Amino acid sequence: MQHYLADYLLPIEPLKTIYKNHVLSIENDKIAAITPEEKFRGENPSANIEHLAGQLIMPGLVNSHTHLAMNLLRGIADDLPLMTWLNEYIWPREKEHVNEDFVTVGTKHAIAEMIRSGTTCFNDSYFFPNITAKVADEIGMRGLVGILSIDFPSNWASNTDEYLQKGQDTLADYFNHPLLGVTASPHAPYTVSDGSFEKIRQMTESLKLKTHIHLHETSAEIDGEMKQYNMRPIERLNKLGLLTPDTIAVHMTQLNDQDIDIIAKSGASVVHCPESNLKLASGFCPIAKLIENNINVAIGTDGAASNNDLDMFSETRTAALLAKAIANSPVVVPAEQALYMATLGGAKALGLDSDIGSIEVGKKADFISVELSDIESLPLYNPESQLVYA
Amino acid sequence: MQHYLADYLLPIEPLKTIYKNHVLSIENDKIAAITPEEKFRGENPSANIEHLAGQLIMPGLVNSHTHLAMNLLRGIADDLPLMTWLNEYIWPREKEHVNEDFVTVGTKHAIAEMIRSGTTCFNDSYFFPNITAKVADEIGMRGLVGILSIDFPSNWASNTDEYLQKGQDTLADYFNHPLLGVTASPHAPYTVSDGSFEKIRQMTESLKLKTHIHLHETSAEIDGEMKQYNMRPIERLNKLGLLTPDTIAVHMTQLNDQDIDIIAKSGASVVHCPESNLKLASGFCPIAKLIENNINVAIGTDGAASNNDLDMFSETRTAALLAKAIANSPVVVPAEQALYMATLGGAKALGLDSDIGSIEVGKKADFISVELSDIESLPLYNPESQLVYA
Repeated sequence: MQHYLADYLLPIEPLKTIYKNHVLSIENDKIAAITPEEKFRGENPSANIEHLAGQLIMPGLVNSHTHLAMNLLRGIADDLPLMTWLNEYIWPREKEHVNEDFVTVGTKHAIAEMIRSGTTCFNDSYFFPNITAKVADEIGMRGLVGILSIDFPSNWASNTDEYLQKGQDTLADYFNHPLLGVTASPHAPYTVSDGSFEKIRQMTESLKLKTHIHLHETSAEIDGEMKQYNMRPIERLNKLGLLTPDTIAVHMTQLNDQDIDIIAKSGASVVHCPESNLKLASGFCPIAKLIENNINVAIGTDGAASNNDLDMFSETRTAALLAKAIANSPVVVPAEQALYMATLGGAKALGLDSDIGSIEVGKKADFISVELSDIESLPLYNPESQLVYA
Repeated sequence: MQHYLADYLLPIEPLKTIYKNHVLSIENDKIAAITPEEKFRGENPSANIEHLAGQLIMPGLVNSHTHLAMNLLRGIADDLPLMTWLNEYIWPREKEHVNEDFVTVGTKHAIAEMIRSGTTCFNDSYFFPNITAKVADEIGMRGLVGILSIDFPSNWASNTDEYLQKGQDTLADYFNHPLLGVTASPHAPYTVSDGSFEKIRQMTESLKLKTHIHLHETSAEIDGEMKQYNMRPIERLNKLGLLTPDTIAVHMTQLNDQDIDIIAKSGASVVHCPESNLKLASGFCPIAKLIENNINVAIGTDGAASNNDLDMFSETRTAALLAKAIANSPVVVPAEQALYMATLGGAKALGLDSDIGSIEVGKKADFISVELSDIESLPLYNPESQLVYA
């Protein structure tokens, strides 16, 4: 049994709670107890406690939307519109460079960056997902990898059937793995046909997979779908049976009331990527309104080519700040709500909330310890505020 | 003479220029030369060069709007509207706590935080400005302090005449000081009467001072002024003769075309504080449009009670990201423009651009060196992009 004592422990569940000077006890990689220091020392006078002075223990951050290997494309093309950026810069370079070596190196780099900034779980979608999984497994990082599918050929696969079959075959080891899991990951409505979506739906049903998809990223996407299908992408996905409690819908800008109503009824989770949306001028995801409608909201950084970092604390700060401006109200998405999205909200979206996302007895020992005694964090009136805003 | 060699040198002027492997030579605290390494070594075979491997040299950042001593109020009250935050939390606590000791400790803390994050010059407005100046002088930090004026009594002064007289008297040592300077700093249109503004105008004329003021911070400010004066605050300030090339107008949200036209004609500089504006849901400053209208834009963090940090790199990143979303165009305010605002734009606003804000021969040796070889900055395709976005 290991015992950790920080100045503060932020369990996330229950919300708006901080334990001061509590001992966190871990047994077999699970949280065994959370005990006030004095009580603990009285009952365990000889126990060895690791003292994390000036620090705060909280659940590891869950980065709910990543393209890890894209770390190698950080800063390769900036200050451009989404479709120019994709068509003229990212996709040609991916065609030229992306292979097993690229994904190995990029994923390692990204995992190092995530660990350095407090993220302990990711939700990835990229080519060669088996390589991403292999690297994560070797390092011991928790996460989900996607069976990517997109209606155009790449260095990974040449058509939908191959994307789906190759994904299933090469990821066979990770469907029942202690740290890793698998999702279906159709790229986006504008790159996946109805026929492909139906194949993906069948796969998610038979294999019981979450569906991780870019949805309502830009107004151009919505305009295009209206022209082609006379439906908004959310409506189309709903009609195709792919909007369920197992859907992880990423970006979700340009939402009207009907969109929000459909999402709320479906039980899908939304992943908010504020910095990528700002940088590509994609629009705003109205998270205060989503939360009001009881929709589960998580936070993701997106890939390092459009962010340009994987720092979830910075992303959470941007989410909390931007939500206030968008809702025209400084009281929405307070610090504790922002931290919830970055931890338990993410775990819920990924279907991992029985294991991670909060510090509760019985859950996995998936936690981080944050320094709160640097100049930049002092004085310390409210730890939750400091974590988000400072 | 000292010589520094970093991998990159970003001069800011000329814009969009990077010198690779150039030696920066300093003599008597001034920039004496910028020379390609090979040429330099050929001409100075025995010179001692400080090698800053993996780093980038650039001008020190100029934080164009601060309330340094408010570092002691970081996180004391968050997630609140501006007037509730001021009336119920900040102003009562300032009344209770703010004195010479408070300003001494708060300023020291803030200067440490600024130096750690690359800021070498500030533009402050607070009570006991003489204490702020004294602390900055002792530490050797460059900046401007304001002769604060507000139409209500504080621990510092009880009425406008006293604010102005006490400011001038106690700041006498800093009007002609190598590192420090003095501004007039009326708090805001909604806390300063026409009569007080006229006294301030006379003071700025006779002492040749810049005017540092919060302007158009919220829609409530504008509504209030319309009711009381039947004019928007920008119109009123212009009519009172206080909108000139020497005006440093801070916040500037809710701008209509006429406002922008008045500002452009006046030659005033705008200081954009995006994180404070987001956090207080004050509105958006349309910097892309201001730049298009040839208005000089600088960047400020505001005080640590509303930000909640003094990190100018983070502020610059937020400014660049938010500008794209507000202008609905990912190509506006590219990385090099954002860095310009954080350096030379700030120096221009503060009237210090003949001395600082760019790395040019003859200017002061006011520069920083930034690590670009950490995991979070690699790979390095474009240093300017990395500085802003990563």
